[in-house]
Amino acid sequence: MFFKQIESEGLAHYSYVIGDSGEAVVIDPRRDYKVYIREAHKAGFRIKYILETHRNEDYVIGSVGLAEHTGAEIFHADAGMDYRYEKAVEDGREFRVGGLKIKAIATPGHTPGSFSYLLHDHKGRPWIVFTGDCLFAGDVGRVDLPGVEIIEQMANAQYESIFEKLLSLDDEIIVCPGHGAGSVCGSEIAQKVFTTIGLERKYNPKLQLTNREDFVAKVGVEHERPPYFRKMEELNLKEFSPQDVFPTPPPLMPGKFEALMKEGAQVLDVRNEQAYASAHVPGSVSIWSGILSSFAGWFLSYDRPLLLVADSESPTEIIAQLYRIGFDNISGVLNKGMLSWHMSGRDSRSIDTVNVQSLCDLLDSGEELLILDIRPEDEIESNGRIPDAVNIHITQLPERIDEVPRNTRVFVFCGSGMRSMIGASILANAGYDKLTVVLGGLSGWKSGTCEIEL
Amino acid sequence: MFFKQIESEGLAHYSYVIGDSGEAVVIDPRRDYKVYIREAHKAGFRIKYILETHRNEDYVIGSVGLAEHTGAEIFHADAGMDYRYEKAVEDGREFRVGGLKIKAIATPGHTPGSFSYLLHDHKGRPWIVFTGDCLFAGDVGRVDLPGVEIIEQMANAQYESIFEKLLSLDDEIIVCPGHGAGSVCGSEIAQKVFTTIGLERKYNPKLQLTNREDFVAKVGVEHERPPYFRKMEELNLKEFSPQDVFPTPPPLMPGKFEALMKEGAQVLDVRNEQAYASAHVPGSVSIWSGILSSFAGWFLSYDRPLLLVADSESPTEIIAQLYRIGFDNISGVLNKGMLSWHMSGRDSRSIDTVNVQSLCDLLDSGEELLILDIRPEDEIESNGRIPDAVNIHITQLPERIDEVPRNTRVFVFCGSGMRSMIGASILANAGYDKLTVVLGGLSGWKSGTCEIEL
Amino acid sequence: MFFKQIESEGLAHYSYVIGDSGEAVVIDPRRDYKVYIREAHKAGFRIKYILETHRNEDYVIGSVGLAEHTGAEIFHADAGMDYRYEKAVEDGREFRVGGLKIKAIATPGHTPGSFSYLLHDHKGRPWIVFTGDCLFAGDVGRVDLPGVEIIEQMANAQYESIFEKLLSLDDEIIVCPGHGAGSVCGSEIAQKVFTTIGLERKYNPKLQLTNREDFVAKVGVEHERPPYFRKMEELNLKEFSPQDVFPTPPPLMPGKFEALMKEGAQVLDVRNEQAYASAHVPGSVSIWSGILSSFAGWFLSYDRPLLLVADSESPTEIIAQLYRIGFDNISGVLNKGMLSWHMSGRDSRSIDTVNVQSLCDLLDSGEELLILDIRPEDEIESNGRIPDAVNIHITQLPERIDEVPRNTRVFVFCGSGMRSMIGASILANAGYDKLTVVLGGLSGWKSGTCEIEL
Amino acid sequence: MFFKQIESEGLAHYSYVIGDSGEAVVIDPRRDYKVYIREAHKAGFRIKYILETHRNEDYVIGSVGLAEHTGAEIFHADAGMDYRYEKAVEDGREFRVGGLKIKAIATPGHTPGSFSYLLHDHKGRPWIVFTGDCLFAGDVGRVDLPGVEIIEQMANAQYESIFEKLLSLDDEIIVCPGHGAGSVCGSEIAQKVFTTIGLERKYNPKLQLTNREDFVAKVGVEHERPPYFRKMEELNLKEFSPQDVFPTPPPLMPGKFEALMKEGAQVLDVRNEQAYASAHVPGSVSIWSGILSSFAGWFLSYDRPLLLVADSESPTEIIAQLYRIGFDNISGVLNKGMLSWHMSGRDSRSIDTVNVQSLCDLLDSGEELLILDIRPEDEIESNGRIPDAVNIHITQLPERIDEVPRNTRVFVFCGSGMRSMIGASILANAGYDKLTVVLGGLSGWKSGTCEIEL
Repeated sequence: MFFKQIESEGLAHYSYVIGDSGEAVVIDPRRDYKVYIREAHKAGFRIKYILETHRNEDYVIGSVGLAEHTGAEIFHADAGMDYRYEKAVEDGREFRVGGLKIKAIATPGHTPGSFSYLLHDHKGRPWIVFTGDCLFAGDVGRVDLPGVEIIEQMANAQYESIFEKLLSLDDEIIVCPGHGAGSVCGSEIAQKVFTTIGLERKYNPKLQLTNREDFVAKVGVEHERPPYFRKMEELNLKEFSPQDVFPTPPPLMPGKFEALMKEGAQVLDVRNEQAYASAHVPGSVSIWSGILSSFAGWFLSYDRPLLLVADSESPTEIIAQLYRIGFDNISGVLNKGMLSWHMSGRDSRSIDTVNVQSLCDLLDSGEELLILDIRPEDEIESNGRIPDAVNIHITQLPERIDEVPRNTRVFVFCGSGMRSMIGASILANAGYDKLTVVLGGLSGWKSGTCEIEL
Repeated sequence: MFFKQIESEGLAHYSYVIGDSGEAVVIDPRRDYKVYIREAHKAGFRIKYILETHRNEDYVIGSVGLAEHTGAEIFHADAGMDYRYEKAVEDGREFRVGGLKIKAIATPGHTPGSFSYLLHDHKGRPWIVFTGDCLFAGDVGRVDLPGVEIIEQMANAQYESIFEKLLSLDDEIIVCPGHGAGSVCGSEIAQKVFTTIGLERKYNPKLQLTNREDFVAKVGVEHERPPYFRKMEELNLKEFSPQDVFPTPPPLMPGKFEALMKEGAQVLDVRNEQAYASAHVPGSVSIWSGILSSFAGWFLSYDRPLLLVADSESPTEIIAQLYRIGFDNISGVLNKGMLSWHMSGRDSRSIDTVNVQSLCDLLDSGEELLILDIRPEDEIESNGRIPDAVNIHITQLPERIDEVPRNTRVFVFCGSGMRSMIGASILANAGYDKLTVVLGGLSGWKSGTCEIEL
Repeated sequence: MFFKQIESEGLAHYSYVIGDSGEAVVIDPRRDYKVYIREAHKAGFRIKYILETHRNEDYVIGSVGLAEHTGAEIFHADAGMDYRYEKAVEDGREFRVGGLKIKAIATPGHTPGSFSYLLHDHKGRPWIVFTGDCLFAGDVGRVDLPGVEIIEQMANAQYESIFEKLLSLDDEIIVCPGHGAGSVCGSEIAQKVFTTIGLERKYNPKLQLTNREDFVAKVGVEHERPPYFRKMEELNLKEFSPQDVFPTPPPLMPGKFEALMKEGAQVLDVRNEQAYASAHVPGSVSIWSGILSSFAGWFLSYDRPLLLVADSESPTEIIAQLYRIGFDNISGVLNKGMLSWHMSGRDSRSIDTVNVQSLCDLLDSGEELLILDIRPEDEIESNGRIPDAVNIHITQLPERIDEVPRNTRVFVFCGSGMRSMIGASILANAGYDKLTVVLGGLSGWKSGTCEIEL
Repeated sequence: MFFKQIESEGLAHYSYVIGDSGEAVVIDPRRDYKVYIREAHKAGFRIKYILETHRNEDYVIGSVGLAEHTGAEIFHADAGMDYRYEKAVEDGREFRVGGLKIKAIATPGHTPGSFSYLLHDHKGRPWIVFTGDCLFAGDVGRVDLPGVEIIEQMANAQYESIFEKLLSLDDEIIVCPGHGAGSVCGSEIAQKVFTTIGLERKYNPKLQLTNREDFVAKVGVEHERPPYFRKMEELNLKEFSPQDVFPTPPPLMPGKFEALMKEGAQVLDVRNEQAYASAHVPGSVSIWSGILSSFAGWFLSYDRPLLLVADSESPTEIIAQLYRIGFDNISGVLNKGMLSWHMSGRDSRSIDTVNVQSLCDLLDSGEELLILDIRPEDEIESNGRIPDAVNIHITQLPERIDEVPRNTRVFVFCGSGMRSMIGASILANAGYDKLTVVLGGLSGWKSGTCEIEL
């Protein structure tokens, strides 16, 4: 018997391979699907089924490619949608994988046709439930994505899926969700790779709302929807083919790199915020690789080829992160990073940085400045507010950019400094030039003597 | 500056990546071309050119796939042939790769339009010549492949290519050939990963034949042509596409495996000769993985899917060897090898083995038996002949099988025992049942007290 | 937060790395401990604590080496024993690892001072309990190892540990045990990588024995004790040092290999049973790599150097399996396996094999023969008995060898054929020469028409 | 036959593994010697000999550890020195490795007892000469290291070694040297992984000095000697043991990191110059990983533990570079790099950067500033001098630091900007605060319109 949870970092997405007696099933494969073949075959299993929990919206699913390579049978959820491939799973359907049994349980709410899958052991006893984006450790899946007009209906469905279906399972059943902490699919997901029905029943805050009205009122609300979700939703109904290959963009000398920029390519700098601060290609967007999956879909365009500035000429993991959310048109990577750029005598830009203590001192000095806090409102409320700061959530910065004054020195502020550099790069590309990023952000702020409103 | 020789074991094929200042060239890439991208990008080079030395006949070249993935420009040789892709190289054409220069030198003979490539260093001085299948360490390329009717013409061309072109280079030039020892493209290739013009001028036996007539007489002869060469020649003119993916055949349980056999799949057992001897799937062909590249093209069909029996469920290196010579239709690998076959109660066959000393003793006892020596005649002549053995070269065994008596105990014999098991499996599949393979073969024979004719 | 279960295959041993906020803990590290450093550091954690659940008896623990390399603090269990290193854990002691808490719970029974460790999440709530060899999925740890004279006392302790301590935890707590299915530390461990308190409470057969007397009667029994356990118990109290390096035995040519045999080295052949059957070095013991961890400690000596016959010159995984149970004196690996042995003209032995159907036919024919079933009695009872077979458990074969007649043809029989070859090699080395191994064993037997007593 | 050149990047050191028929030899192994065992065993070779070309001074040789792990016999050169291990090679001694022969040739000059090794092929013909630090592609080994008082004597010895011994070999012999371009053991080594006797005879500038006096005058000069050479020379006579383990420093949270700083640890920041510029731990030395091997031995102390700031928590390749030159006392790596430092609210420093065009504009503006060119004099002469720059070679900066004015804005300048940041960090740690590093350095300078003296 074989069990493997495969995490796509950044997306905090969990997919699963379960194998027994020569057969395996994969649940919610990611786009770069070779990892499943490698794991299953190494352990001696033929992939028999691919099960989807729902029409995913935050990444490109790899079902079709995986099926074409392996001959596996795909069962997708969300039967009513316009799928171009394979069969839809039905409520109660059972799948045999070696001596194991998996039963499909309709758990709508996150999408109209979401499914959970209950794995039974060799003796036919329920053991693990794969809950997709219905139930997470510490949270439940958001219900606003199918459309604001049916949000209440979805919240009610989610209520029934959880209270009437999943919570009808016994406390000892293990829960393997579709996402871990850090996913945009749930804002309060706990840092737990797996949980149990009993743990969630007791401690999951949303599951304490046993009254339907309370639950619907709390869960049935709108959250931010990254613009790339639309693209994912569209792609995940289509029949991709395995031709759809993993990109291997070449290293490019500065001359070629610049020429492609002039032809319209967008430049993404994934180095950390300090390297970007010191010197970067004018016009480039900064999104550090550690937060790339969360923000690429907000600030990059699917319509223009991508050029990368990175710490390596073969940034495979970064390319994988982009590929998983549909950015597969990558023209190249700047050879030797900024070193070759500077050695070619090209122009570069920099952005000032300041550590929190120096900023506090500056505030005390009474110098005129503006702190632009680009954290979302709920994070500000939970973690602390900087007095006199202007708050614009980073995702709204492009459209609300005019609220930021051009003649004042702007200190961009977030939780740690990572997101601030995204904001600063957006402002810089819009012509702002009195920009400083606050290194350490709120975390540093709290360690010092600076004032804070809690 | 970057230089890497990449060997495809089994084929004893050498391909090369040379890089400088952000640009790289690949010479004669193999079909599974990702290795070149990985090596070049890791070192910071964009692949700019792909150079072919000739229309290869012993493996599927990876130029088109590599070009599609990288944007590199392909230059093929053999301009007159019916190529479906890219440009033909011309004699004297120069390629710039960073600060290096590569000059094309027409060296026909192995094929009508073969080329060598002379690499010059940063100061423009000749440094390394890539000779493809024109000149090897210790041998020259065979000239019989373009057709027996033009063999003399090709031998003359080869003479001119070597004596008038390559040997006009200075002694100190390094020679990087297209094959090493073990290739079917030259029977006497020395065990040297690289050599020099001077070393070959002095010691290469064929290059001592400075008189044209002597050279043509010696070199202009027919050799065996593995049947798969025709397939390679045909494929290497075509425009493959990167869709042409590397196979990932699933592990199969015995029932499924047997069902595919009944539908017409051929079974290839790549375990070593001893494992096959002890027990194997009835009807399977034995070719040990260590000699797979040399013999698969003789005994497997391109028209039937392949099933594998191997020591692992994911025999990637074996699949690569098959893929490189066009066997990409692999339906599966027997799960857990013969263990699952036997545990399912299925029938199996075995073949007797004997070590050389026991065979010698048997011979002394006067028992009636036949030694079938399946080595080629030239190998027998060079290394020693077994008295009273019947000689049929393994490659001719299928068509000359009726020369082997059915009622005598047959001892199959070769240099070490590896090829003998191929022969025994062919005989067994043709209904022979008194078969014994001689373990250790001639090598063991010579270590003992058995009689031999030298 | 980081959680990783690391399995040592063969031993079916599970060790664990748990990390949070820069700190990590390792539970029951194996001897080749670099894997923990690699995993922890890659994820950004310094290993702070090493926790042992008990003085292990089935493998060499890697605590001291890991501590010396990392500066981690070791807490061993079994305080009363003569430990030469570090501190003993105390009941109720709490360990902080980042924002997580781990609490030690004394759960004696398997050893007098066994411990379990209860991991609490960031909010201080119990989440996962690491139960070592106290509680497994589907079984409880054996209690006979501390000594037959205190077996009842230990069974009572185990009863209290389980019913009063572990089962006082809530159903929803996840259970991560020290072993999975296949370990000699529990005969009925289920094929589950993890379980929960609730699942065990409901389904674990031993946990249904809620009456103390019933439990003690059932659990307080003697099992086989592999002889190597004594060695492990002794080593696991000592202070090893990191000098204790992982072996890298060289490939050896047959002449050197044979010379070392003559100097007293023992030869272990880890190829599968079919390869061994066909030809092996005279005097070698056959233990296929897939069952090596289970049987090496029964049939190899710690006092003589080891020589290996394997399918590869660098059988790292096999060396790791031996190293983990203290066999670190490995002099070499036969170069090119049996091929070089035979090519050197050396003598070899073979053992006949038969598939089950042929054996059944033979039985029907009335030929005189003996089936030697080397499965343990409980396995025979559970799975089926072969009529007229003589039963000697493989582990008792050396001392009961005289019960096997020398002049009858002996068919060695087990579940699948793998263990049979161990038995056949032991008999062959004792001079038996009419030996045949039954391929497929009971599994094959059941698939056919052969008679069986259930 | 097996041939592998293994490069230690940074040191541009080449070691070699040559194998044949089960036996292998390693020439000049590096300290982390496992790579040789892996390569040799994978290919089926037992390492029989370890040959040293001389008592190395630029890295710690791995002979003793490799010998202890493999049983190989070491032959060191420089017989007169105070070696604590194994045998000294003698002139003319022959070593058999399978069917190959290697002959030792005394080629003193770089050290008093340097040796070259001439590899003969299977037919006994000279093929490849391993020249250690006697002859490189494009240069000869320096002769000043044995002592300035015997420099002329060594230069004469080098003359004889090259002209009377190596050049007595034929042009076609391949030359495999001990270093490639970038090594401090020869300033003009060409970018060639291998060369030939003929190529060097014709083109090596030093080999054109056929007159002994000219050669001695040119070669017998003093070069810079990095201070760490003394340490290497001392270590390379000693008998290390395999206990001498590869460091695995843990990730450290800022608090622990800072505590170790206060106890006297030195901080090395190996991130690229831009990341360091933006923010770094006060007091840290900047040496970018790409030039670490060349400069660590100049600016780090062997007497204080090291702390690292890097882009990863497990910077294995960086640790290897340090380990190879004896820096094995590494206490830890800053967890999450500067991010965790800032999030803990700690103070950091930054250094201004400027691109070349902006600097040129500034120069035109007449602002008072000083360009500190830290390139060596010969590099300045070859590549171009910046008007009015003050030149202090980076290696002399610590002792000549008082020549740098404290009240002027100092622009640190080198070839590309990489070395400049080392200089700037040294100045910053000495209290200088008006520092700017010129990104792109001379390379960028030449691309623009800035003035230069050639």
